[in-house]
Amino acid sequence: MSFLHLKSVKNLQNLARQSVDLTQDGVFNGERIETMRQSAIGFDLLYAAERVTPAVIEALFELSDEAMAMQKMADMQAGVEMNRIEGFDSEQRAVLHTAMRDQFTHRQKAKNAMAASDMAQAELQKLERFLEVLDRENRFTDLIQIGIGGSDLGPRALYLALLPFARPHHRVHFISNVDPDDANNVLNRVDLKKTLVVVVSKSGTTLETLTNEEFVRARLQKLGLDPKEHFIAVTGEKSPMDNPAKYKASFYIWDFVGGRYSSTSMAGAVAIGFAYGFSALMEILRGAHAMDAHAMTKRNLPLLSALLGIWNRNFLQLPTAAVVPYSQALIRFPAHLQQLDMESNGKSVDITGHFVDFSTGPVVWGEIGTNAQHSFYQLIHQGTQAIPVEFIGFRKSQHPFDLDVKGSSSQEKLLANLFAQSIALAKGQKSANPNRFFPGNRPNRILLADRLDPYTLGALLAFYEHKVALQGFIWNINSFDQEGVQLGKVLASQILDLFAAQRSSKSGPSFEVGEAYLRILNAKK
Amino acid sequence: MSFLHLKSVKNLQNLARQSVDLTQDGVFNGERIETMRQSAIGFDLLYAAERVTPAVIEALFELSDEAMAMQKMADMQAGVEMNRIEGFDSEQRAVLHTAMRDQFTHRQKAKNAMAASDMAQAELQKLERFLEVLDRENRFTDLIQIGIGGSDLGPRALYLALLPFARPHHRVHFISNVDPDDANNVLNRVDLKKTLVVVVSKSGTTLETLTNEEFVRARLQKLGLDPKEHFIAVTGEKSPMDNPAKYKASFYIWDFVGGRYSSTSMAGAVAIGFAYGFSALMEILRGAHAMDAHAMTKRNLPLLSALLGIWNRNFLQLPTAAVVPYSQALIRFPAHLQQLDMESNGKSVDITGHFVDFSTGPVVWGEIGTNAQHSFYQLIHQGTQAIPVEFIGFRKSQHPFDLDVKGSSSQEKLLANLFAQSIALAKGQKSANPNRFFPGNRPNRILLADRLDPYTLGALLAFYEHKVALQGFIWNINSFDQEGVQLGKVLASQILDLFAAQRSSKSGPSFEVGEAYLRILNAKK
Repeated sequence: MSFLHLKSVKNLQNLARQSVDLTQDGVFNGERIETMRQSAIGFDLLYAAERVTPAVIEALFELSDEAMAMQKMADMQAGVEMNRIEGFDSEQRAVLHTAMRDQFTHRQKAKNAMAASDMAQAELQKLERFLEVLDRENRFTDLIQIGIGGSDLGPRALYLALLPFARPHHRVHFISNVDPDDANNVLNRVDLKKTLVVVVSKSGTTLETLTNEEFVRARLQKLGLDPKEHFIAVTGEKSPMDNPAKYKASFYIWDFVGGRYSSTSMAGAVAIGFAYGFSALMEILRGAHAMDAHAMTKRNLPLLSALLGIWNRNFLQLPTAAVVPYSQALIRFPAHLQQLDMESNGKSVDITGHFVDFSTGPVVWGEIGTNAQHSFYQLIHQGTQAIPVEFIGFRKSQHPFDLDVKGSSSQEKLLANLFAQSIALAKGQKSANPNRFFPGNRPNRILLADRLDPYTLGALLAFYEHKVALQGFIWNINSFDQEGVQLGKVLASQILDLFAAQRSSKSGPSFEVGEAYLRILNAKK
Repeated sequence: MSFLHLKSVKNLQNLARQSVDLTQDGVFNGERIETMRQSAIGFDLLYAAERVTPAVIEALFELSDEAMAMQKMADMQAGVEMNRIEGFDSEQRAVLHTAMRDQFTHRQKAKNAMAASDMAQAELQKLERFLEVLDRENRFTDLIQIGIGGSDLGPRALYLALLPFARPHHRVHFISNVDPDDANNVLNRVDLKKTLVVVVSKSGTTLETLTNEEFVRARLQKLGLDPKEHFIAVTGEKSPMDNPAKYKASFYIWDFVGGRYSSTSMAGAVAIGFAYGFSALMEILRGAHAMDAHAMTKRNLPLLSALLGIWNRNFLQLPTAAVVPYSQALIRFPAHLQQLDMESNGKSVDITGHFVDFSTGPVVWGEIGTNAQHSFYQLIHQGTQAIPVEFIGFRKSQHPFDLDVKGSSSQEKLLANLFAQSIALAKGQKSANPNRFFPGNRPNRILLADRLDPYTLGALLAFYEHKVALQGFIWNINSFDQEGVQLGKVLASQILDLFAAQRSSKSGPSFEVGEAYLRILNAKK
């Protein structure tokens, strides 16, 4: 049944017409903050500053029941073919990123899931041995990961999130953009003799990645180095990249793990294992697995976050959602979440192939705090549109060293700002000066944990994977394909044909608008 | 007169009701691409893929005339007090970032502007001498800039945009976040003996910046180094930081240059001059100045871009605006633009102190291409909301080295993708498979230049400064204050008092909601 026809949706629409006003005296108070809180595996989700009442929360959980979100989550983790559009040609795949970390207790019993988990285990064991040899030989101080999209954003976000845990002489760099300046910049700052190069492409055909691979191979050859001694493939079995003649080692990824969900597969594991060691990698997986198991329990945290997002999107009609981690470590986590969420839920067709008549995924954007306070907070406090914000915070910093300045530590200042912003957005402020008036009633929530260590990072990663999947389940869309990126690829290839024709002075294929752009390109002043 | 009562606004509202459909056969064609193009000082603005007609463009320029946007731009550059709210307490300042680079031909004649330009010149001369001494002494290989907001985002975006032009052994690092992990990470990777530290705060009182300054001073002292030999102040004259006893050198900035407009003041100039040399810095200023002069001409490029933004925001009712540079060098330029735009135009009060009854600044967000194609393009092609996109592209890469792979260079692949996306968004694609249907008619434009060198970067920076200011002039809001960041500061300070009370076991001030958050913080499991 379509979203808009669900009984709970009608109920929620009614509730939205009389939604709570957080700026009213006494509404946003201490008791509300302490009761509108849900906790699990080291995380608190604080949602007092959302524009909800207990009745809204009940109706949201009813929505989740009506949409059978938890059943679909169980199906997903069991290996049911969730990546499909019924009645139309589609990917028709299982969605088993959870199997990548199903290596601990409470393993899935379903056949597909077990098989995937076994395959992941075999790759992990290969990686453990490979890293042992690297440690013994001690030849490589740097690793370049070449990949784009999910082979870049998630792994990069994870790598940058753990710098204080780094082992000396194990730096990681990333090349993703087809812009030659990306590869050139990275190549200018590493010693290729001591550098491993990990190429990540499931299909073995990603244009940007193959181009950058050739770019780096050419540089190695120019230096008289043997690429085979440096290159590692992370790819699908039997892909064009699955070629022992060209790579020192190969690790496999599978079509049941989508790119944006692949950080805990070998797409992220090789670089993370190199930088932080195999045991830190396993801690990330352990944390992710704990969240996977939690996401199958009743009224779990990712589900609550998903429902609050749906409340803001479909009932308060807010078109964007900001995510602001108060943590330097999460500097690129918003960029990862942007892909995870927008590529998954930026859809207009439901899984039965019908165009939806409601809003799906919002624009997800953000930067870290406190920096963001000095950037876009002016608009979120006083602009003409309300922006829901999800804050992320940690009680402790990663580095042990901190300093008291003016009576407080930096970590206290960081947390004071986080809570202050939540309060300011919710309560607002009256003023006789209209330019100093804050309307308030601007929804936000806080995800709070103790310290961003590998385990917590893994859990956080999985929290958002499940939040996004659960929203898709409730909207009844396919959060696991990305047909919307195909048209651009086809047209880019046609324009490359025009470039080729131009070089050979032959007439190229007929492509009127492409030719017009090329004429402008060639018209230098 | 209020925006909604302007004659051209009524006209534009009518035009929007019958706006062009770019997916109709023959509408988005080669002729349209070649005629909907405006060029100046090395830039082409290509707007065929916007949902406009020549009549819309005429009406938009009428809007600009009615709102006296060009008069206000001339006033701004002449030093009129543009930063004000009439009838209410406000900053009441001139807005003279243009004076920072008014060091070449066609200098402003107005008294305020000339005075500001002379003051900027004096600082530039001081900086030139200072850099000469540094070069002679050759003691410093690294520079850490401590600053936040405009003292971080713009300078950092500029620094990262010119890496291929870097002088050997002149690296720049940034510390901005009050999160102690930011300072610790940076301090772990530099040799402080050879590091200059530039502290940037106009008021000399920015909490994050002063805290991080103490953080770095403590580390220097621990190493037995004399902070006075390493620290440079960039601050207002007579601010608490204007103290020769504590700093090796001081450079001044003024309250007529707002933080987000301050990249070409000493807030950016010291770090850029160190990294790329004084002459590269002057090229940035020369480019910015060329754009400043251009922005005072009729129907200039920043004005056209501003008007297209207003068309999308106020007439097509699109709440966000993406900016996607197809250039690795501009990796943090979207973050700078996000501050520049959202802090300037995220306002609800016009300059007469009346609440506006129309939409002001959109949510500005973006990442670089082609990376973004593998991230959020799914949503911009097939999501349930249209996202206007401003692409930025360059004919040539920065590095001279490129490589042909599969018959095309990386730069050709980059440009082919840029044009392909513009076409795909505009034209869309029909399909019998609903999941492969692209609705098209999604507005976008391309800002194209030759190569991102220092001159072009300066012009690009100024392009956006003027685009944002011109939008503010048309909306009749004050784009130069940021009262919306104050409330959070006040509340953060109150929460810090609670932390202090907690340490001393005394009872703190009464702040019920703050106390509730602290109880949750202290409740560890």
